[in-house]
Amino acid sequence: MPKRIFFDQLRDHLDEQVTIKGWLYAKRSSGKLIFLQIRDGVGIVQCVVFKPEVTAEIFSLADSCAQESSLSVTGLVREHQRHKGEYEIGVLDLTVLHRPVHDYPISPKEHGVDFLMDNRHLWLRSLRQHAILKIRAEISKAIRDYFDNHGFTLIDAPILTPNACEGTSTLFETDYHDKKAYLTQSGQLYMEAAAAAFGKVYCFGPTFRAEKSKTRRHLAEFWMVEPEVSFIDLEQDIDLAEDFIVAIVSRVLEKRKSELEFLERDLSYLERVQKPFPRIRYGQAIQILEQAGQPTEYGQDLGGDDETIVSNHFDRPVVVTHYPIEQKAFYFKRDSADESLALNMDILAPEGYGEIVGGGQREDDLARLSRSIDQHHLPEDAFAWYLDLRRYGSFPHAGFGLGLERTVCWICGLKHVRETSPFPRMLTRLTP
Amino acid sequence: MPKRIFFDQLRDHLDEQVTIKGWLYAKRSSGKLIFLQIRDGVGIVQCVVFKPEVTAEIFSLADSCAQESSLSVTGLVREHQRHKGEYEIGVLDLTVLHRPVHDYPISPKEHGVDFLMDNRHLWLRSLRQHAILKIRAEISKAIRDYFDNHGFTLIDAPILTPNACEGTSTLFETDYHDKKAYLTQSGQLYMEAAAAAFGKVYCFGPTFRAEKSKTRRHLAEFWMVEPEVSFIDLEQDIDLAEDFIVAIVSRVLEKRKSELEFLERDLSYLERVQKPFPRIRYGQAIQILEQAGQPTEYGQDLGGDDETIVSNHFDRPVVVTHYPIEQKAFYFKRDSADESLALNMDILAPEGYGEIVGGGQREDDLARLSRSIDQHHLPEDAFAWYLDLRRYGSFPHAGFGLGLERTVCWICGLKHVRETSPFPRMLTRLTP
Repeated sequence: MPKRIFFDQLRDHLDEQVTIKGWLYAKRSSGKLIFLQIRDGVGIVQCVVFKPEVTAEIFSLADSCAQESSLSVTGLVREHQRHKGEYEIGVLDLTVLHRPVHDYPISPKEHGVDFLMDNRHLWLRSLRQHAILKIRAEISKAIRDYFDNHGFTLIDAPILTPNACEGTSTLFETDYHDKKAYLTQSGQLYMEAAAAAFGKVYCFGPTFRAEKSKTRRHLAEFWMVEPEVSFIDLEQDIDLAEDFIVAIVSRVLEKRKSELEFLERDLSYLERVQKPFPRIRYGQAIQILEQAGQPTEYGQDLGGDDETIVSNHFDRPVVVTHYPIEQKAFYFKRDSADESLALNMDILAPEGYGEIVGGGQREDDLARLSRSIDQHHLPEDAFAWYLDLRRYGSFPHAGFGLGLERTVCWICGLKHVRETSPFPRMLTRLTP
Repeated sequence: MPKRIFFDQLRDHLDEQVTIKGWLYAKRSSGKLIFLQIRDGVGIVQCVVFKPEVTAEIFSLADSCAQESSLSVTGLVREHQRHKGEYEIGVLDLTVLHRPVHDYPISPKEHGVDFLMDNRHLWLRSLRQHAILKIRAEISKAIRDYFDNHGFTLIDAPILTPNACEGTSTLFETDYHDKKAYLTQSGQLYMEAAAAAFGKVYCFGPTFRAEKSKTRRHLAEFWMVEPEVSFIDLEQDIDLAEDFIVAIVSRVLEKRKSELEFLERDLSYLERVQKPFPRIRYGQAIQILEQAGQPTEYGQDLGGDDETIVSNHFDRPVVVTHYPIEQKAFYFKRDSADESLALNMDILAPEGYGEIVGGGQREDDLARLSRSIDQHHLPEDAFAWYLDLRRYGSFPHAGFGLGLERTVCWICGLKHVRETSPFPRMLTRLTP
C-alpha cells in the first residue's frame, strides 16, 4: 500500500498512486460512476469510483457507504476534471475501516442550537465550524508571532490565584489544600512584575468569569492575551494595540481568505482595518450617544448597546480613552491634567462587536496606589507583593488585554461568541 | 532626548546618542569612573560615567544610586573596552526615575528557598531566573512551531470539565452555576474528538493536579501539550514524539546556548538527544530494575526512583512501552498480540529526570471501550459523547502529552521543578 498522505500533499503526487484516509462527507452516483467526497481533517477531496476500474466488491462497497464511514482509499492522483487547480483521486482500492452504527445525527437540515451544542464533539466536523476554528488557530498564532517577533517574552500567568480581590461574585472558587483559591480573571498584575524583569512581556491563556450574563458576547472561560511593557505611557500603549490589531487582521486576510469567504464574511470591513484608528475620549463618546438619541449620563459605564452605537460611528476600530476614574479598577493611573480621569483605553471593534481590548497605564506611585487600594476597600496585605513593584525601582508602564473569542467572533463576522470556542463554557453549558 | 532603545538594538546605534531605560543591577567606582550595570529586561549593559564628561550633579547622582533604582540614561554607544563584540554606553545624562524605598531585599548572599519564593515577583529579576524563563519561553515557542509546521491545528481544550471521572481526590472542584465542575487534568478526550474533525490536532494549556505530593517533580498547575493524530498506531506515535523531542532540544541548543551556559548546563547531555531513542518494553524495564538490585514486581507501576534507574541505563531519552493494561487508564487500546498489555508508551528523560511524555494508541472499538469504562467503574453516561467517536466513523488514533515544566527542568538541568514556572503553585504555595 502506498504511503498515506494528507490532502495538502496531493499536488506533490500528481499521477502517482497514494493512499488517503478519512471520512465520507457526501456521495453521489451516476451510472458507472460513484463520487465520494472524503474529508481528512485538512480538506475534502473527490474520489471517483469508475466501475470498469475496480472490482465488483469495491464498487458495491463504495455504493453502500454511509456518511462519516471511515475509509482508506488507494488511487491515482489527477487533476480535478471540472475544477482547475484542484485534484481528485481515481479509486483503485477502498477499505471501509468503520461503518457508523446509526445514521450520522447531524444532517444538512436545520438543527436547533442546543442540539448542535450537545453534539459539539461531532459538530466540529462540519465545514462551517472547521473554518471558524481554523481562523481561531490562525489568530492565536498571529498573536504569539506578533509578540515573539517584537521582543516580548512569554510569561505564563498562574490560573490559581490566592485572593478574591474584587469580590467573589464573578469568581470561580476552589479548595486549595485547606485554603481557598480562585480562577484568574486576568494575568495583568503578574505581568507587571514580569515587565520589571523582562522589559516587555505577555501572557496568553484561559481566564474565567462566573458572571450570570447570558449574552452573545459572554463565555465563562475564554482566552486572553495580555502584553505589558515597561517605560511606556498610554499613548505608546495605544500605538502598540493599534499596530497589533492591524497585524492580526492582515494575517487572517492573508492566510485564511478562503475560510472567511466560506463564512461569507464581507472582506471590505476587514480590509479597512488600517492605522490610524480614531481616538476619542469617554466624554466624546457620551456626546455621540446623546446625538444618536441614546443619552447615557456622564460617569456611567458604556453598556453593550452604547458600545454598538459608538463603534457604528466609525469604519474601523475606535479607541475610547480617559474614562472617569471611579468606573475603573484600582490600578489605573490618573491623568495629571484632570485627576478625575483614568489613563485607560478600550478598543471597540466595528460593526457593533463592542469591546475587544481594555488597558492603559498603571499607577506607579506607591502612596497613590496604596490609597487607591484603600478607596476600593481592598485588603492591602493581599497586594503587598504588588506594592513591592512600586517600592523597588518603580517605573511607568502600560499594557492591555485582548479577548481571543470576541476577536474571532468579530473577524469571522459571527452572531454569537459560542461558535468561536471548540468546547464553549457558558452559563448553561458545561458539556461535552 | 534620543529615542529609547532596548539593549538588543545597541549594535544598530554604534557611535550614536541613545536613551536607555532600566534598573541598576550593580555598580562599582574607581576614581573618576563609575560603572553602572543596568538591566532593561532584554540584557545588561555597562554604562560608564566619566567625571569630566558629565556635570557634578550627574556624577553624584550616579554615585548615590542604589540597586534596582529605575533609571533613564542618555549617552553614546561604543564598543565595550574589554569585551570584544559587546557594547557599552558613555553616559552624558542620567535621570533617576525612582529610588527604592528600602534596600532591595534580594542580595547576592544565599537566601532560603521560602524567602525567594515569597519574593518570586522580585526574584524573577535575577539572572538565573531570567535565563530559566527565557528557556521556558523558547521551549513553548518550539513546541507550537513544531506542531504548526507539521500540519497540526491548535484546538484549545476546555479547563472546566463536567465529570470527576477518575475520582475526585486529585481534582480541583468548583461550583459552576448550581453544578459541579472540575479543573482539567488532560485535554486528551477532547483532542480525540478534534482529531476526527481536523486530522492532526494539539492543545497546549494549563492542567491541574490536586495531589498531596510534595516532590521535586510535582506542581499543582502545569502546562501540557497534547497532540492527537488520526489513523496512526503506537509506532507512529513514538516516531512523532521522538522527532518532536529532538526538535525541541535542538532549538534550545541553537537559540538559548548562552542561557544554558549561564546555568552551567553540561551541553554534551543535550547534544546526545538524537534519533533513534532506545525503545524497551515494560517487561524489559522490570529486568533492568532487577539487575540493578532494585527489583519491582511485574505489574507494579514504575515509581520515580524506578524511572531514575531505568533512565540512567541510557544516554538519551528512553521509550518504555506495553505496560500491563490494569495499570493504565481506561482508554488505552490492548495489544492484539498479548491482550494483557496496553499499546502505551512513556518517555523517560535521561539523567534521572523521569517521565516527560505519556501516551499511546486509543481504544477505537465501541464494545471494548464500553466494557473498559465498565471495568473501571466509570459512569458510562459521562462518556456518551466520547463513545460517539466510536459510533460515527471510528478510526485508529494515537497521541501523547508532554509536560512543559518537567521538560524545562530537564533541559535546564535543574534540581527542582519550582524554578521552571514564573509563579509556581505547589502543595504549600499559592502566592504571590
